[in-house]
Amino acid sequence: MKLMKVVMIALPILAAAMPALAERAYSPEEQKNKEIVLDFYQKALNDKDFEAASKYLGKYIQHNPLAADGPEGLRGFIEFLKKTYPHSKSEITRVMVDGNYVILRVHAIREPGDRGSAIVDIFRVENNKIEEHWDSVQPIPEKSANTNTMF
Amino acid sequence: MKLMKVVMIALPILAAAMPALAERAYSPEEQKNKEIVLDFYQKALNDKDFEAASKYLGKYIQHNPLAADGPEGLRGFIEFLKKTYPHSKSEITRVMVDGNYVILRVHAIREPGDRGSAIVDIFRVENNKIEEHWDSVQPIPEKSANTNTMF
Repeated sequence: MKLMKVVMIALPILAAAMPALAERAYSPEEQKNKEIVLDFYQKALNDKDFEAASKYLGKYIQHNPLAADGPEGLRGFIEFLKKTYPHSKSEITRVMVDGNYVILRVHAIREPGDRGSAIVDIFRVENNKIEEHWDSVQPIPEKSANTNTMF
Repeated sequence: MKLMKVVMIALPILAAAMPALAERAYSPEEQKNKEIVLDFYQKALNDKDFEAASKYLGKYIQHNPLAADGPEGLRGFIEFLKKTYPHSKSEITRVMVDGNYVILRVHAIREPGDRGSAIVDIFRVENNKIEEHWDSVQPIPEKSANTNTMF
Protein backbone atom coordinates (compact mmCIF):
# COMPACT_ATOMS: atom_id res chain seq x y z
CA MET A 1 0.00 0.00 0.00
CA LYS A 2 2.86 2.35 0.84
CA LEU A 3 4.51 1.73 -2.54
CA MET A 4 1.20 2.28 -4.29
CA LYS A 5 0.82 5.59 -2.53
CA VAL A 6 4.31 6.72 -3.58
CA VAL A 7 3.56 5.72 -7.19
CA MET A 8 0.25 7.57 -7.15
CA ILE A 9 1.92 10.74 -5.89
CA ALA A 10 5.04 10.47 -8.05
CA LEU A 11 3.40 9.60 -11.39
CA PRO A 12 1.65 12.92 -12.06
CA ILE A 13 4.79 14.80 -11.04
CA LEU A 14 6.91 12.72 -13.42
CA ALA A 15 4.32 13.07 -16.17
CA ALA A 16 4.30 16.85 -15.81
CA ALA A 17 8.09 17.02 -15.90
CA MET A 18 8.45 14.86 -19.03
CA PRO A 19 7.66 15.94 -22.58
CA ALA A 20 4.56 14.39 -24.08
CA LEU A 21 5.25 10.90 -25.40
CA ALA A 22 4.66 12.08 -28.94
CA GLU A 23 7.58 14.49 -28.82
CA ARG A 24 10.88 13.13 -29.96
CA ALA A 25 14.29 13.98 -28.52
CA TYR A 26 16.21 16.37 -30.76
CA SER A 27 19.89 15.74 -31.41
CA PRO A 28 22.21 18.43 -29.97
CA GLU A 29 22.60 19.84 -33.50
CA GLU A 30 18.83 20.00 -34.01
CA GLN A 31 18.42 21.68 -30.63
CA LYS A 32 21.04 24.23 -31.66
CA ASN A 33 19.35 24.81 -35.03
CA LYS A 34 16.05 25.42 -33.25
CA GLU A 35 17.61 27.93 -30.84
CA ILE A 36 19.35 29.78 -33.69
CA VAL A 37 16.13 30.16 -35.68
CA LEU A 38 14.04 31.20 -32.66
CA ASP A 39 16.53 33.87 -31.63
CA PHE A 40 16.96 35.03 -35.24
CA TYR A 41 13.19 35.32 -35.65
CA GLN A 42 12.78 37.36 -32.48
CA LYS A 43 15.63 39.71 -33.41
CA ALA A 44 14.51 40.15 -37.02
CA LEU A 45 10.71 40.21 -36.88
CA ASN A 46 9.89 41.52 -33.40
CA ASP A 47 12.94 43.53 -32.31
CA LYS A 48 13.45 44.60 -35.96
CA ASP A 49 17.18 44.68 -35.23
CA PHE A 50 19.08 43.80 -38.43
CA GLU A 51 22.53 43.89 -36.81
CA ALA A 52 21.52 41.38 -34.14
CA ALA A 53 19.63 39.15 -36.57
CA SER A 54 22.21 39.14 -39.35
CA LYS A 55 24.91 37.44 -37.24
CA TYR A 56 22.95 34.21 -37.78
CA LEU A 57 22.87 34.52 -41.57
CA GLY A 58 24.90 32.55 -44.07
CA LYS A 59 24.14 32.94 -47.78
CA TYR A 60 20.45 33.27 -46.92
CA ILE A 61 19.05 32.04 -50.22
CA GLN A 62 15.65 33.68 -50.36
CA HIS A 63 12.48 32.08 -51.76
CA ASN A 64 10.07 34.77 -50.54
CA PRO A 65 9.23 36.59 -53.78
CA LEU A 66 9.12 40.02 -52.11
CA ALA A 67 12.70 39.89 -50.75
CA ALA A 68 16.03 40.04 -52.54
CA ASP A 69 18.59 37.28 -51.97
CA GLY A 70 21.03 37.34 -49.08
CA PRO A 71 21.36 39.38 -45.88
CA GLU A 72 20.77 42.64 -47.79
CA GLY A 73 17.28 41.43 -48.66
CA LEU A 74 16.54 40.99 -44.96
CA ARG A 75 17.93 44.43 -44.21
CA GLY A 76 15.51 45.92 -46.73
CA PHE A 77 12.57 43.99 -45.29
CA ILE A 78 13.35 45.06 -41.69
CA GLU A 79 13.68 48.69 -42.81
CA PHE A 80 10.31 48.41 -44.53
CA LEU A 81 8.75 46.96 -41.35
CA LYS A 82 10.26 49.64 -39.09
CA LYS A 83 9.03 52.41 -41.35
CA THR A 84 5.61 51.10 -42.38
CA TYR A 85 4.56 48.73 -39.58
CA PRO A 86 6.62 49.62 -36.48
CA HIS A 87 4.09 47.88 -34.19
CA SER A 88 3.98 44.61 -36.17
CA LYS A 89 4.35 41.43 -34.12
CA SER A 90 5.04 37.82 -35.11
CA GLU A 91 3.96 35.17 -32.62
CA ILE A 92 5.33 31.67 -33.10
CA THR A 93 2.58 29.17 -32.31
CA ARG A 94 4.40 25.93 -33.24
CA VAL A 95 8.02 24.88 -33.87
CA MET A 96 9.10 21.76 -35.74
CA VAL A 97 12.61 20.53 -36.49
CA ASP A 98 13.89 17.97 -38.99
CA GLY A 99 17.68 17.86 -39.05
CA ASN A 100 18.79 21.07 -40.75
CA TYR A 101 15.24 22.32 -41.24
CA VAL A 102 13.40 24.41 -38.69
CA ILE A 103 9.73 25.05 -39.45
CA LEU A 104 7.68 27.77 -37.71
CA ARG A 105 3.92 28.27 -37.63
CA VAL A 106 3.44 31.99 -37.08
CA HIS A 107 0.61 34.44 -36.45
CA ALA A 108 1.81 37.78 -37.81
CA ILE A 109 0.00 41.05 -37.13
CA ARG A 110 1.00 44.28 -38.91
CA GLU A 111 -1.15 46.68 -36.87
CA PRO A 112 -2.54 45.99 -33.39
CA GLY A 113 -6.11 44.72 -33.74
CA ASP A 114 -5.58 43.25 -37.23
CA ARG A 115 -6.67 39.69 -37.89
CA GLY A 116 -3.23 39.25 -39.40
CA SER A 117 -1.72 36.46 -41.45
CA ALA A 118 -1.12 32.74 -40.93
CA ILE A 119 2.43 31.98 -42.03
CA VAL A 120 4.68 28.97 -42.29
CA ASP A 121 8.40 29.75 -42.42
CA ILE A 122 10.95 27.10 -43.31
CA PHE A 123 14.63 27.73 -42.56
CA ARG A 124 17.60 25.57 -43.53
CA VAL A 125 20.50 25.85 -41.09
CA GLU A 126 24.00 24.60 -41.84
CA ASN A 127 27.02 24.93 -39.55
CA ASN A 128 25.07 27.29 -37.27
CA LYS A 129 24.16 29.66 -40.11
CA ILE A 130 20.77 30.19 -41.74
CA GLU A 131 21.40 29.38 -45.38
CA GLU A 132 17.94 29.31 -46.96
CA HIS A 133 14.36 30.46 -46.36
CA TRP A 134 10.94 29.59 -47.79
CA ASP A 135 7.53 30.77 -46.65
CA SER A 136 3.83 30.94 -47.41
CA VAL A 137 1.82 33.89 -46.11
CA GLN A 138 -1.98 33.77 -46.01
CA PRO A 139 -4.17 36.61 -44.75
CA ILE A 140 -6.61 35.22 -42.16
CA PRO A 141 -10.13 35.50 -43.59
CA GLU A 142 -12.95 37.08 -41.59
CA LYS A 143 -15.03 33.90 -41.53
CA SER A 144 -14.04 30.28 -41.12
CA ALA A 145 -15.82 27.01 -41.92
CA ASN A 146 -14.55 25.63 -38.56
CA THR A 147 -13.98 26.93 -35.03
CA ASN A 148 -10.34 25.85 -34.63
CA THR A 149 -8.55 29.07 -35.72
CA MET A 150 -5.65 28.74 -38.18
CA PHE A 151 -3.20 27.96 -35.31
CA MET B 1 47.80 0.64 -53.44
CA LYS B 2 45.23 -2.07 -54.07
CA LEU B 3 43.29 -1.04 -50.97
CA MET B 4 43.47 2.61 -52.06
CA LYS B 5 42.03 1.67 -55.44
CA VAL B 6 39.15 -0.19 -53.83
CA VAL B 7 38.43 2.78 -51.58
CA MET B 8 38.52 5.19 -54.50
CA ILE B 9 36.06 3.09 -56.46
CA ALA B 10 33.83 2.25 -53.52
CA LEU B 11 33.54 5.71 -51.98
CA PRO B 12 31.53 7.40 -54.72
CA ILE B 13 29.23 4.37 -54.93
CA LEU B 14 28.66 4.44 -51.17
CA ALA B 15 28.16 8.20 -51.25
CA ALA B 16 25.54 7.91 -53.97
CA ALA B 17 23.69 5.17 -52.09
CA MET B 18 23.60 7.05 -48.78
CA PRO B 19 21.39 10.01 -47.96
CA ALA B 20 23.14 13.37 -47.74
CA LEU B 21 24.93 13.83 -44.40
CA ALA B 22 22.52 16.57 -43.45
CA GLU B 23 19.55 14.19 -43.54
CA ARG B 24 18.78 12.48 -40.31
CA ALA B 25 17.54 8.91 -39.93
CA TYR B 26 13.81 8.80 -39.22
CA SER B 27 12.50 6.45 -36.56
CA PRO B 28 10.27 3.64 -37.92
CA GLU B 29 7.25 5.56 -36.62
CA GLU B 30 8.35 8.78 -38.37
CA GLN B 31 8.96 6.85 -41.59
CA LYS B 32 5.46 5.41 -41.32
CA ASN B 33 3.97 8.87 -40.62
CA LYS B 34 5.70 10.20 -43.74
CA GLU B 35 4.40 7.35 -45.91
CA ILE B 36 0.86 7.81 -44.60
CA VAL B 37 0.82 11.53 -45.36
CA LEU B 38 2.40 11.14 -48.82
CA ASP B 39 -0.10 8.47 -49.85
CA PHE B 40 -2.99 10.43 -48.33
CA TYR B 41 -1.93 13.57 -50.23
CA GLN B 42 -1.71 11.76 -53.56
CA LYS B 43 -5.10 10.08 -53.08
CA ALA B 44 -6.83 13.25 -51.89
CA LEU B 45 -5.31 16.05 -53.97
CA ASN B 46 -4.20 14.39 -57.19
CA ASP B 47 -6.36 11.26 -57.54
CA LYS B 48 -9.26 13.20 -55.92
CA ASP B 49 -10.42 9.87 -54.46
CA PHE B 50 -12.14 10.54 -51.13
CA GLU B 51 -12.75 6.86 -50.33
CA ALA B 52 -9.06 5.99 -50.73
CA ALA B 53 -7.85 9.10 -48.88
CA SER B 54 -10.29 8.92 -45.98
CA LYS B 55 -9.00 5.57 -44.71
CA TYR B 56 -6.04 7.53 -43.31
CA LEU B 57 -8.18 10.03 -41.40
CA GLY B 58 -8.78 10.16 -37.66
CA LYS B 59 -10.67 13.12 -36.22
CA TYR B 60 -9.01 15.37 -38.80
CA ILE B 61 -9.23 18.62 -36.85
CA GLN B 62 -9.20 21.25 -39.58
CA HIS B 63 -7.43 24.62 -39.37
CA ASN B 64 -7.89 25.58 -43.04
CA PRO B 65 -10.62 28.23 -42.81
CA LEU B 66 -12.31 27.11 -46.02
CA ALA B 67 -12.94 23.52 -44.89
CA ALA B 68 -15.29 22.12 -42.27
CA ASP B 69 -13.92 19.91 -39.51
CA GLY B 70 -13.44 16.18 -39.92
CA PRO B 71 -13.49 13.79 -42.87
CA GLU B 72 -16.71 15.33 -44.22
CA GLY B 73 -14.85 18.61 -44.73
CA LEU B 74 -12.33 16.80 -46.92
CA ARG B 75 -15.13 15.11 -48.86
CA GLY B 76 -16.60 18.54 -49.62
CA PHE B 77 -13.23 19.91 -50.70
CA ILE B 78 -12.51 16.96 -53.02
CA GLU B 79 -15.98 17.26 -54.58
CA PHE B 80 -15.31 20.98 -55.15
CA LEU B 81 -11.97 20.16 -56.81
CA LYS B 82 -13.44 17.44 -59.04
CA LYS B 83 -16.23 19.72 -60.20
CA THR B 84 -14.41 23.06 -60.50
CA TYR B 85 -10.74 22.15 -61.08
CA PRO B 86 -10.66 18.55 -62.36
CA HIS B 87 -7.15 19.07 -63.82
CA SER B 88 -5.63 20.55 -60.64
CA LYS B 89 -2.31 19.07 -59.55
CA SER B 90 -0.33 19.31 -56.32
CA GLU B 91 3.38 18.63 -56.57
CA ILE B 92 5.27 18.04 -53.33
CA THR B 93 8.67 19.72 -53.56
CA ARG B 94 9.94 19.06 -50.02
CA VAL B 95 8.99 16.75 -47.14
CA MET B 96 9.98 17.26 -43.50
CA VAL B 97 9.14 15.09 -40.49
CA ASP B 98 9.32 15.83 -36.76
CA GLY B 99 7.86 13.00 -34.73
CA ASN B 100 4.11 13.11 -35.25
CA TYR B 101 4.31 16.10 -37.60
CA VAL B 102 4.75 15.78 -41.36
CA ILE B 103 5.32 19.04 -43.22
CA LEU B 104 4.95 19.37 -47.00
CA ARG B 105 6.10 22.17 -49.29
CA VAL B 106 3.73 22.03 -52.25
CA HIS B 107 3.30 23.68 -55.64
CA ALA B 108 -0.41 23.52 -56.43
CA ILE B 109 -1.85 24.34 -59.85
CA ARG B 110 -5.60 24.59 -60.41
CA GLU B 111 -5.55 24.83 -64.21
CA PRO B 112 -2.68 23.67 -66.45
CA GLY B 113 -0.49 26.66 -67.25
CA ASP B 114 -1.37 28.58 -64.06
CA ARG B 115 1.46 29.98 -61.94
CA GLY B 116 -0.36 28.33 -59.06
CA SER B 117 0.13 28.62 -55.32
CA ALA B 118 2.99 27.96 -52.91
CA ILE B 119 1.61 26.00 -49.96
CA VAL B 120 2.89 24.57 -46.72
CA ASP B 121 0.74 21.79 -45.26
CA ILE B 122 1.31 20.52 -41.71
CA PHE B 123 -0.25 17.21 -40.67
CA ARG B 124 -0.29 15.65 -37.20
CA VAL B 125 -0.39 11.86 -37.27
CA GLU B 126 -1.22 9.72 -34.26
CA ASN B 127 -1.49 5.92 -34.21
CA ASN B 128 -1.35 5.84 -38.02
CA LYS B 129 -4.25 8.27 -38.43
CA ILE B 130 -4.15 11.90 -39.57
CA GLU B 131 -5.64 13.80 -36.66
CA GLU B 132 -5.03 17.46 -37.50
CA HIS B 133 -4.18 19.75 -40.42
CA TRP B 134 -2.88 23.33 -40.79
CA ASP B 135 -1.86 25.15 -43.96
CA SER B 136 -0.90 28.45 -45.53
CA VAL B 137 -1.70 29.03 -49.19
CA GLN B 138 -0.05 31.87 -51.12
CA PRO B 139 -0.70 32.62 -54.79
CA ILE B 140 2.63 32.86 -56.61
CA PRO B 141 3.10 36.45 -57.78
CA GLU B 142 4.01 37.25 -61.38
CA LYS B 143 7.29 38.90 -60.43
CA SER B 144 9.89 38.05 -57.81
CA ALA B 145 12.69 40.01 -56.17
CA ASN B 146 14.94 36.94 -56.52
CA THR B 147 15.51 34.17 -59.07
CA ASN B 148 15.12 31.17 -56.73
CA THR B 149 11.40 30.40 -57.26
CA MET B 150 9.24 29.81 -54.19
CA PHE B 151 10.31 26.11 -54.06
